[in-house]
Amino acid sequence: MKTKLILPLFLRETPNSSKMAIKYGVVGTGALGGFYGGMLAKTGQDVHFLFRSDFEYVQQHGLRVDSVMGDFHLHEIQAYKKSTDMPECDVVLVCLKTTGNHHLAELIKPILHAGSIVILLQNGLGVEEDLAKQLPEAYIAGGLAFICSNKIGPGHIHHLDYGKLIIGSYNVPDDAILKQVVSDFQAAGIPTDLSPNLLFARWQKLVWNIPFNGMTVVLNTTTDKIMDNEQTRELSKELMLEVIHGANACGVPLKESLAQQMIDMTIKMKPYAPSMKLDYDHRRAMEIAYIYSKPIETARTNGFEMSKVSMLEKQLRFIQHNQ
Amino acid sequence: MKTKLILPLFLRETPNSSKMAIKYGVVGTGALGGFYGGMLAKTGQDVHFLFRSDFEYVQQHGLRVDSVMGDFHLHEIQAYKKSTDMPECDVVLVCLKTTGNHHLAELIKPILHAGSIVILLQNGLGVEEDLAKQLPEAYIAGGLAFICSNKIGPGHIHHLDYGKLIIGSYNVPDDAILKQVVSDFQAAGIPTDLSPNLLFARWQKLVWNIPFNGMTVVLNTTTDKIMDNEQTRELSKELMLEVIHGANACGVPLKESLAQQMIDMTIKMKPYAPSMKLDYDHRRAMEIAYIYSKPIETARTNGFEMSKVSMLEKQLRFIQHNQ
Repeated sequence: MKTKLILPLFLRETPNSSKMAIKYGVVGTGALGGFYGGMLAKTGQDVHFLFRSDFEYVQQHGLRVDSVMGDFHLHEIQAYKKSTDMPECDVVLVCLKTTGNHHLAELIKPILHAGSIVILLQNGLGVEEDLAKQLPEAYIAGGLAFICSNKIGPGHIHHLDYGKLIIGSYNVPDDAILKQVVSDFQAAGIPTDLSPNLLFARWQKLVWNIPFNGMTVVLNTTTDKIMDNEQTRELSKELMLEVIHGANACGVPLKESLAQQMIDMTIKMKPYAPSMKLDYDHRRAMEIAYIYSKPIETARTNGFEMSKVSMLEKQLRFIQHNQ
Repeated sequence: MKTKLILPLFLRETPNSSKMAIKYGVVGTGALGGFYGGMLAKTGQDVHFLFRSDFEYVQQHGLRVDSVMGDFHLHEIQAYKKSTDMPECDVVLVCLKTTGNHHLAELIKPILHAGSIVILLQNGLGVEEDLAKQLPEAYIAGGLAFICSNKIGPGHIHHLDYGKLIIGSYNVPDDAILKQVVSDFQAAGIPTDLSPNLLFARWQKLVWNIPFNGMTVVLNTTTDKIMDNEQTRELSKELMLEVIHGANACGVPLKESLAQQMIDMTIKMKPYAPSMKLDYDHRRAMEIAYIYSKPIETARTNGFEMSKVSMLEKQLRFIQHNQ
């Protein structure tokens, strides 16, 4: 276990309050990073955004967010094209797809100081573990975004619905800063919770993500069609129960009743294409490794075979390979 | 159990031999019926063909078979547009897709006499059982065709490869006529076996049909691509093993080693689209009920859950419904 403590060197008092002022880094300013980072910046937080192809455009035109919570336009933002140009940040929000995680350590290393916390706002299981192997000194947390948001143009985000964040520590020994992050998000209007059990939160989200990400791709459809058909509605629930049993085998006490709750919720949702379906439609790499392979392996190591989930994973790998 | 014996009234001696001359009816003269019936007619057997849309064309132009075993053209055949126009037949070869089986009893009733044998040259499980419920007096056998054949135009069949037939009794109390049928097919150049265990033969064919019919549809691909990909090659074998275990639960002693044998055979095959994939491509009904639902139910009744096969069935039903 880590014994190192967070150095509070970076905690500066803001002029008007006794709150800590956190220097935020947003790594990956797309649908997720653009919205969450934008919301923080809008409320006056010190946010540093890493862009790729949109950098020049954003330098000129700023960042636009069309949101169900109110549209806004940040005309001037602290934008960077390379992480080596960025300042060291106290909290780094990683808002990239997991498909590029093999480059992540290298990418964020220049912006970490001894007390920085990296929050992986990413889907799936095992992302913190893998980053910790590459950056053993880093403080890492995870975050789950329950949001429907797309990037619709350079520096232009469209936030369609939801937005709740759940944040949880992976190896952060003191939760003062994470509490401050939660408070900053809440002040920006984002419903945010600090989960005492990141693993629980990750498995819980997988109960929805595993059936619907994969099935919308394999059957080339949307959630409403899957819910309209008795066969696939039943299959969705079977997959959910398999994930719940997988979680249970790993010591995560998800209840079976969660499956029916999520089915009922999905029936009520507007027609929806999950992120993996969008990746598939745009011929981008799909997040199969962290949403499927890692949970399957983890459950298997703990003695439970998620056999239908594993069938879905194989179908997805075939599709990815032959796309 | 049936005690009725086959009346040998219809067994006529041909002038040149002591063999029985069988009056054959072919119900459904497409890729299968056109080839097998055509081969019998070509060797001088008395074959009566039922057509649907091709009837007028065939009246004028006859039946053409382009075959790897040699092309031939039957300029005059005994063709009918309605079964009520046909004579009573001693052996009725049913060569229709199972998707129309709810009309089958009605269709063939006019051509059956007290001793007729109906041979269902159809895929899947339970076709004989279902027909026997509707025609309790009928003698029924099943047949499995290992063939690659397509209808490429009106009265025009293209036989690409293979052709072996396995025939087995369902409730035929005396195998003399089935032996004669086998002998007639053999004389026509078709490798044909009489199986002592129809159920064994049906399950054995399902070991191949279940993975490849469904997966080529769900993944919109061909057998070679499924074999080229490590994930789907593995999944094919898992599905095969599930079918073998399902068969075992039903008292059918298929060996696990059959799975690897069939994988090896499929790797060597030319790129192939199974019949369900062709049905899907042509937006025809797929044979989900007899290839998937019936085997799943039968195994379940015998205490074995074919869970991956069942997942594939649900995906297929979704696709059928949304096509």
